[in-house]
Amino acid sequence: MAKLWAGRFGNDTSVLLDEFNASLPFDKNLWEEDIQGSCEHAKMLYSIGLLEIQELDSILKGLAEIREEIEHNKFLFNIKDEDIHMAIESALSQKIGNAGKRLHTARSRNDQVALDFKLYCRKHNIALQSLLSELIATLLHIAKEHTHTLMPGMTHLQHAQPISFGYHLVAWCVALKRDIERLQASYHRSNDCPLGSAALAGTPYGNERENLAKSLGFTHASLNAMDSVSQRDFALDILYDIAMVMLHISRIAEELIMWSSYEFGFVSFSDGFSTGSSIMPQKKNPDVAELLRGKSGRAYGNLMALLTTMKALPLAYNKDMQEDKEGVFDSIQTAYISLKILTQSLKELQINKENMLKMCQKGHLVATDLADFLVQECNIPFRQAHHITGICVRYAETQSKDLSKINPNDLELILQQEIIKLKQDSTQEQSIRLDNLTGENLTQVLDLENSMQKRNSLGGCASAEVKRQIHVLEQWLHKIS
Amino acid sequence: MAKLWAGRFGNDTSVLLDEFNASLPFDKNLWEEDIQGSCEHAKMLYSIGLLEIQELDSILKGLAEIREEIEHNKFLFNIKDEDIHMAIESALSQKIGNAGKRLHTARSRNDQVALDFKLYCRKHNIALQSLLSELIATLLHIAKEHTHTLMPGMTHLQHAQPISFGYHLVAWCVALKRDIERLQASYHRSNDCPLGSAALAGTPYGNERENLAKSLGFTHASLNAMDSVSQRDFALDILYDIAMVMLHISRIAEELIMWSSYEFGFVSFSDGFSTGSSIMPQKKNPDVAELLRGKSGRAYGNLMALLTTMKALPLAYNKDMQEDKEGVFDSIQTAYISLKILTQSLKELQINKENMLKMCQKGHLVATDLADFLVQECNIPFRQAHHITGICVRYAETQSKDLSKINPNDLELILQQEIIKLKQDSTQEQSIRLDNLTGENLTQVLDLENSMQKRNSLGGCASAEVKRQIHVLEQWLHKIS
Amino acid sequence: MAKLWAGRFGNDTSVLLDEFNASLPFDKNLWEEDIQGSCEHAKMLYSIGLLEIQELDSILKGLAEIREEIEHNKFLFNIKDEDIHMAIESALSQKIGNAGKRLHTARSRNDQVALDFKLYCRKHNIALQSLLSELIATLLHIAKEHTHTLMPGMTHLQHAQPISFGYHLVAWCVALKRDIERLQASYHRSNDCPLGSAALAGTPYGNERENLAKSLGFTHASLNAMDSVSQRDFALDILYDIAMVMLHISRIAEELIMWSSYEFGFVSFSDGFSTGSSIMPQKKNPDVAELLRGKSGRAYGNLMALLTTMKALPLAYNKDMQEDKEGVFDSIQTAYISLKILTQSLKELQINKENMLKMCQKGHLVATDLADFLVQECNIPFRQAHHITGICVRYAETQSKDLSKINPNDLELILQQEIIKLKQDSTQEQSIRLDNLTGENLTQVLDLENSMQKRNSLGGCASAEVKRQIHVLEQWLHKIS
Amino acid sequence: MAKLWAGRFGNDTSVLLDEFNASLPFDKNLWEEDIQGSCEHAKMLYSIGLLEIQELDSILKGLAEIREEIEHNKFLFNIKDEDIHMAIESALSQKIGNAGKRLHTARSRNDQVALDFKLYCRKHNIALQSLLSELIATLLHIAKEHTHTLMPGMTHLQHAQPISFGYHLVAWCVALKRDIERLQASYHRSNDCPLGSAALAGTPYGNERENLAKSLGFTHASLNAMDSVSQRDFALDILYDIAMVMLHISRIAEELIMWSSYEFGFVSFSDGFSTGSSIMPQKKNPDVAELLRGKSGRAYGNLMALLTTMKALPLAYNKDMQEDKEGVFDSIQTAYISLKILTQSLKELQINKENMLKMCQKGHLVATDLADFLVQECNIPFRQAHHITGICVRYAETQSKDLSKINPNDLELILQQEIIKLKQDSTQEQSIRLDNLTGENLTQVLDLENSMQKRNSLGGCASAEVKRQIHVLEQWLHKIS
Repeated sequence: MAKLWAGRFGNDTSVLLDEFNASLPFDKNLWEEDIQGSCEHAKMLYSIGLLEIQELDSILKGLAEIREEIEHNKFLFNIKDEDIHMAIESALSQKIGNAGKRLHTARSRNDQVALDFKLYCRKHNIALQSLLSELIATLLHIAKEHTHTLMPGMTHLQHAQPISFGYHLVAWCVALKRDIERLQASYHRSNDCPLGSAALAGTPYGNERENLAKSLGFTHASLNAMDSVSQRDFALDILYDIAMVMLHISRIAEELIMWSSYEFGFVSFSDGFSTGSSIMPQKKNPDVAELLRGKSGRAYGNLMALLTTMKALPLAYNKDMQEDKEGVFDSIQTAYISLKILTQSLKELQINKENMLKMCQKGHLVATDLADFLVQECNIPFRQAHHITGICVRYAETQSKDLSKINPNDLELILQQEIIKLKQDSTQEQSIRLDNLTGENLTQVLDLENSMQKRNSLGGCASAEVKRQIHVLEQWLHKIS
Repeated sequence: MAKLWAGRFGNDTSVLLDEFNASLPFDKNLWEEDIQGSCEHAKMLYSIGLLEIQELDSILKGLAEIREEIEHNKFLFNIKDEDIHMAIESALSQKIGNAGKRLHTARSRNDQVALDFKLYCRKHNIALQSLLSELIATLLHIAKEHTHTLMPGMTHLQHAQPISFGYHLVAWCVALKRDIERLQASYHRSNDCPLGSAALAGTPYGNERENLAKSLGFTHASLNAMDSVSQRDFALDILYDIAMVMLHISRIAEELIMWSSYEFGFVSFSDGFSTGSSIMPQKKNPDVAELLRGKSGRAYGNLMALLTTMKALPLAYNKDMQEDKEGVFDSIQTAYISLKILTQSLKELQINKENMLKMCQKGHLVATDLADFLVQECNIPFRQAHHITGICVRYAETQSKDLSKINPNDLELILQQEIIKLKQDSTQEQSIRLDNLTGENLTQVLDLENSMQKRNSLGGCASAEVKRQIHVLEQWLHKIS
Repeated sequence: MAKLWAGRFGNDTSVLLDEFNASLPFDKNLWEEDIQGSCEHAKMLYSIGLLEIQELDSILKGLAEIREEIEHNKFLFNIKDEDIHMAIESALSQKIGNAGKRLHTARSRNDQVALDFKLYCRKHNIALQSLLSELIATLLHIAKEHTHTLMPGMTHLQHAQPISFGYHLVAWCVALKRDIERLQASYHRSNDCPLGSAALAGTPYGNERENLAKSLGFTHASLNAMDSVSQRDFALDILYDIAMVMLHISRIAEELIMWSSYEFGFVSFSDGFSTGSSIMPQKKNPDVAELLRGKSGRAYGNLMALLTTMKALPLAYNKDMQEDKEGVFDSIQTAYISLKILTQSLKELQINKENMLKMCQKGHLVATDLADFLVQECNIPFRQAHHITGICVRYAETQSKDLSKINPNDLELILQQEIIKLKQDSTQEQSIRLDNLTGENLTQVLDLENSMQKRNSLGGCASAEVKRQIHVLEQWLHKIS
Repeated sequence: MAKLWAGRFGNDTSVLLDEFNASLPFDKNLWEEDIQGSCEHAKMLYSIGLLEIQELDSILKGLAEIREEIEHNKFLFNIKDEDIHMAIESALSQKIGNAGKRLHTARSRNDQVALDFKLYCRKHNIALQSLLSELIATLLHIAKEHTHTLMPGMTHLQHAQPISFGYHLVAWCVALKRDIERLQASYHRSNDCPLGSAALAGTPYGNERENLAKSLGFTHASLNAMDSVSQRDFALDILYDIAMVMLHISRIAEELIMWSSYEFGFVSFSDGFSTGSSIMPQKKNPDVAELLRGKSGRAYGNLMALLTTMKALPLAYNKDMQEDKEGVFDSIQTAYISLKILTQSLKELQINKENMLKMCQKGHLVATDLADFLVQECNIPFRQAHHITGICVRYAETQSKDLSKINPNDLELILQQEIIKLKQDSTQEQSIRLDNLTGENLTQVLDLENSMQKRNSLGGCASAEVKRQIHVLEQWLHKIS
């Protein structure tokens, strides 16, 4: 077997080892949080007399310079520094000398990395909530225009009952609302600041941890230092929260892909959100939606990865935990771009009402209405109404027509026959009434628009009720923003 | 190739199909919730005039009988009924005739199954919180007795600093506290009742969904029927919550297993929680802890299973979603028995203080204290204090002694030498002081108990601080119970 | 919080513990393998003089009786026996006394469980291959009838090129063929027999492990006892193999579900493989296909579960490994019933050729043919042919016609114009020819059937080529059966 | 909520979209395979008359130039080209004009990406086999030196029987051997070349697919074009293979970490493979082994990710499948560096024989030997021998001694007593013999080295047998290299 990687790895084990151990190539993402944490830590050290005021000034000035350099891509990251904490600390020491060397008092890399990573997750938690809100707002905007746009509501991908396109979009919104609430709860659970936990046992410096926590946007200091440096629940929580976001997006994407097929033809993506084929000139592919669907994979994978890594680790910090970051960075980046792209593509989505309406005339969508009518107007028990409706559907099939297209008078005859049979069969069915069984009433029952409008219970698809749902969601969005 | 399963499957496809389709073998677990839901649904139907009072009475009486029968194992489950909803409804119809057939008005199996399953998850969510509380209470009880029991605190499985056994147990408790909070948040997110959503579009019966929701313990009716019947977020949430519980348990178990090895010898399981070997008469194996560790696998697997099943499903209900239950049942059962067993085994755990103490004398646990001393008492920057301490540790190694066993006077000499070098090297280090560098002070620094007690910052390992942590947790337990 | 499970768990910890520790409730599935292993082990012990002939006879007779009892449900499994190995051994000892007690010489539960479980996986590996073969044979049978049945071949769920239904089915078969090959490879890798490994270090009895291995259907004894008792690669392999089978089935199921929607209408499931709705009388739901799609979840979950459990386990046997079985049993059962049901439902599937053909006239399926024609007959570089074809497609769209329905003469004019432009634009395109650009030729190019038949390269969709593919697969099936 | 990412994403949707859609940032890894595939494709086009010889020459020359440019980092990758295939083709067209435009005849991006990715997986499959071989060779080298180094063999992390360190290492090797065999089988299953499948239906060019396949190192052309472009089994296979490699590495790493703890002290990592602490000067942490253990997470995650992405995708190509690559690249890179680092760190590992030996004197490691002795020399049934040995172990415990340190004569007395009891209890036990129960024999039985050497059955831990195992593995390595 050829050793293909000989050139790549060579004999220089130490280089290889640096590459293996170092987290700098990815944890430099945390530079902003690291500087923020060090600034507040320095202030605390000053407040308890472990830094002179000149030292504090010098540290804050040095860190500000480093921030400036990184923001303008002038900072040189050296893999020999291993991680972002060392990279910044050593740059600081070069700039300001001994004061920099005093900064690491009363903390350890263990609590420092826990802090930086938690701050990062919290920042992006908020940002993801914001993007989800934008997506919901966009959907509600479209939904408002389509509370009367009939489409076949489906279960099992089979036509079931007529609903409106707007109603369907609201269903998506409710799932996305839960995603925001899930992120809110995760944020709340990560309100304790790990800084000052040091290696695993706290410090003898009596640091002002409560004030320190508040200065960094937490509500309180963490309760037990050993847990603080060895837990990654906050990272797992955001991975799970994003897995759920991407699950919901995958379901939305699946529908958009099917709806944009020739067979459905319910929607068309704008050219900007489709692509062509290298071999088939006529193709217009819903690539964006397909990628959105497929990216659930990496969100699930990142969750599974960290769950695996954390399994059965003894306390406190172990180096395995360095594996916590890349998956989180990837999931956050994935959720960001996915939410942004989905929002934009929906704004440009073309909705083909006619095709939706045409498909409403397939699949006997008003069958449930007929059953409901028999229950409500003729007082027939539901199970038997269900049975009789089945007979009517079979009649429509023999006529090669949709139930909604059957002559109401023909239907009246069939129904009368069946109900009379029912009354004869059963001695108890004295309450069954036939008086409302008229062609006129049946005309109403068989009407698709009527069918939708009738379902006006809370949560139902009637236009007025959907408008109410939209209003509730808008109020909620307003409240949380 | 032999067809081994020919006998098993035979030609009777319909039997095979029943078995494949039916959920009754597992969803009968939901019988209690199904009856509960039907009772409240019937009352609602009566309240809106769709049932006569006699019909309502008859339904409630019938359902009460069925409850009685199931509780006493007298109910015959027939796989032909497909699922628990049909099984109970058909039994009811047999008992009371037409009134039973009216019960399915204004609902569908889609919202019925969503309701039953959500009620089930909510019930067990509460019960799991209770078991977690018991576990925390047990740990705190033990922790209180061991706030002075010295053990080597570890990072990277290497001795780091002296802590107390009680402190370590509190770290476990804080993780378990988050598990309770995570369950609480999931419970809160599942406060909307799906009943009345019907197939996917609501109903024309104007059912009193808000009241119905409250009668079933929810705070409100769900906002959109289509989402209500097609989402399983509440099931995924509890699967994730349990995955986290089992992750934390796997970490506890790993430590217990290592601590009960000959090499560690920190704890011993009682005989009831150990087992012997079929071939090696002397073995006493920590089987319980090993199983606890291994069961993280099924908890993760169940989560991944449902995440996969739900991926890219179009709205609304699809039969794929029938796959939601077995994993949830299994995870709940796993968490229950694991929490119960872990709590019990901890109550009977023997703690070998002497071995813990003995191991504190390996690994130079007081090294950080020496560094801290140089920072605090001699005003040496931390990075340099760290370096000088390293020199002392290497000296101890050449003496084949633990740093805590080195003669303080010898140490004083070494330190003086190094500090003088430091003062010479650096023109700025005028603030370095030598006056506190006395043998007496160093004696204090090298003392293990002192080392632990000094770390009295919030979250630290000092006995008083650990007692405070225990008190905070006890107060919290009291509040939520 | 109420303690809902108090009744369930009560105070009897020892009962709880038995339940937690015992594997008997599930590993009794291994009874047949356990008896088989014990019989061969006993013969081996006799062959090396550790059993007398009477003892051997008595053991074999006793085991045969136990087999008989289990087969006829007369064997009483007692959870106090913990596992199937103990259950059978203690029953044997009760039957035959001391000889039974000698049976456990030169083995341990560790190698016994490894053996039983490996035998089980191997048996079912073979059976799954057989079921996969049946499924392929069924698909090929249908495919043969449909090598001329035109349907729109899709990429991105968009119409791409005309293919035959038979061709599509063959694509499924090739994936399933790999599933068989994957199982074969796993079988091959599990050809080493663990029996005689004892606890972890082998035995001093010089057991005839090679002969023993062959008597149990293996090709050789395992190389290292410690690995033999601590590895579960064979279980992970079959879990992965089944995950892949279920992945392929999920893709087949997805297509069947879409194809049976009103919008597609390509296929209909027989009544036996569809179900109705509790609320919508007209529904005919493809429940079977949906369940098949959803069951990928549990197959993936079971794989992840065992991967997690095995992660970072020290050698040799740990009790965590008891968690290996339930997932494997479940995955095997899932694959079995899924393959059987899918095969049967395909046999009864109704194929709606007309709808497939009708949809071929949407989406300009012959566009690639036109491009290919320009390349082959006019010598236009592909990228430019692709561009010109795009112009023709846009022309068809303005006519609201499919490209295949455009008058060939109109097309000829457009093409001439474009090609002349091309020749003018480029100084190099001297080789472009116009002589074959005739209405007659274009008529051929625009014909759907022609389009399909032209793709006759190896692996292509032309009927003759598809027949060849079917033949190759049939030969292969014949060879492996 | 602040819109933190406004600056990042801005209004330029098209830029965002390019970034979302483009695979070039990662699939440029495939450049070498892409050029290789294009060269062979061009030759095939020439062989069937679709390219002139000058065109072929020009294409090959152009591709060689591009290869040169990429190798020397002179090639400009432009994200507008979307993917590596377009990037190279457009560079080629710029270089050589129309001939470049002819290259895409008789293929599509669908088969091109399938080809490139498959070639990539196959190349790295071979390279991983090579690295695994090196690791095994390294382990065998160490094992040879330690076939007499006694260490406590463990089950349940409890001392069980004395084994040698060499024997333990061989157990690792056997698992790694299966990893190579798994890779070999995956390679074998990916022996069919997809090139020439075009979009999904093959081509009308009658391309010489069999020859083309062979020119690219495959054994044959793929059977069905639709499957060829829509399957990613080969990618899933290598992800699973690597998950198994990383699982095995996680187990090795766990043992190394425990063994290097103060409590075990069996091994020490060289300084190059350990790291210090930022706060605790004395620490020497086994970071490398911890990272190796933790990286199982990402390997599992990558597998789960692609399984999820592929679930329920309809045929043929969908853009979701673009998500296939990053995980594979990451897993391959992870396995590479992990294998290399593990091999190197083992070469420098210090083995502390004395500590291993010392720990052999804890846990009554010879107990099984005593039981075996009673079976073999006294003809006592194993179950009863097991019971009697338990009595002896309890005696040793009361003496606070290891069984191996008990005076053989004392033991003889105890055993005599127990055996006599046994003979009295049972009428059948006439065959029990006492003549070999001598102090001299017991001295042999209680000797640790004897205990290990006695287990000389195939697969056992006796030195000679371990040497045989090493020899078998070396022969096998020689054969496959």
